[in-house]
Amino acid sequence: MRILGIDPGYAIMGWGVIEKKGNSVSTVAYGAVTTEKDMPMPDRLKVLYSSLMEIIAEYQPDEVSIEELYFHTNQKTVIFVGQARGVAILACSNSSLPIYEYTPLQIKTSITGNGRAEKKQVQEMVKRILGLSEVPKPDDTADAIAAAICHSYVGELNKKLSLLK
Amino acid sequence: MRILGIDPGYAIMGWGVIEKKGNSVSTVAYGAVTTEKDMPMPDRLKVLYSSLMEIIAEYQPDEVSIEELYFHTNQKTVIFVGQARGVAILACSNSSLPIYEYTPLQIKTSITGNGRAEKKQVQEMVKRILGLSEVPKPDDTADAIAAAICHSYVGELNKKLSLLK
Repeated sequence: MRILGIDPGYAIMGWGVIEKKGNSVSTVAYGAVTTEKDMPMPDRLKVLYSSLMEIIAEYQPDEVSIEELYFHTNQKTVIFVGQARGVAILACSNSSLPIYEYTPLQIKTSITGNGRAEKKQVQEMVKRILGLSEVPKPDDTADAIAAAICHSYVGELNKKLSLLK
Repeated sequence: MRILGIDPGYAIMGWGVIEKKGNSVSTVAYGAVTTEKDMPMPDRLKVLYSSLMEIIAEYQPDEVSIEELYFHTNQKTVIFVGQARGVAILACSNSSLPIYEYTPLQIKTSITGNGRAEKKQVQEMVKRILGLSEVPKPDDTADAIAAAICHSYVGELNKKLSLLK
């Protein structure tokens, strides 16, 4: 089964596709979609949506995993991230892909065994689990892969609980 | 020139299309797209996007006007509204429509002459300006039409200032 992990943002949208076979996971592809600061928001959202549609078409994931949005202190940022997140969810929804949502706590716990693990520790485990020579960059890509790995660990039993409402 | 006004929300998305000819404006069509509470968010976003695409295809607006999102106290709501807003902007962007953004102050001032006008007063003016027998319902629809009227009043000079960034 192929899982697409997404870390939604309007400047950088991290993504990663992993393949789950039995108990092991491996990397299919990963990267980040970026949009320029001086690009109007409607164009940025258009780029994010069409890029994600291309990624889905190319790597044909079966399911999607996305981190639950944590609450920024900056309200203006929340709205912009929300807009990018809406567009990312729509790309998956328009591709008939089921989307599962995990809290940062769930992701950290499933990957490191510690819900309070540092970002660096999570990234190190992502590298080790997938047998990569380096931690995927930027952080948004590593976070997206971490969400995908979390979903691959959760198993069928928990699926109904984490389906995006 | 036809202007589509949108008041984005995930439960109710108000919309209204008006026609501007010289100094007068008239109604083309208006309504609201609603999504059910128990529908998963990815499906709600899909419905909002496809409904808006249909409205654009049917009424062929030339430009779009949208109210700047005000800051809710509930952060969870901000994210959901942000997601719906992102999908609405994407529908316009994917239809190659320029999108203009106005603050509630700009909308109230342009319609009633008073930036602190009550909601009811704005609605009464919307009804009067368009020569309607009743205030359009729900409030989201009246708000969407108000945004469209505001844009019709702003004129070419202010356009560059209010283009959504």
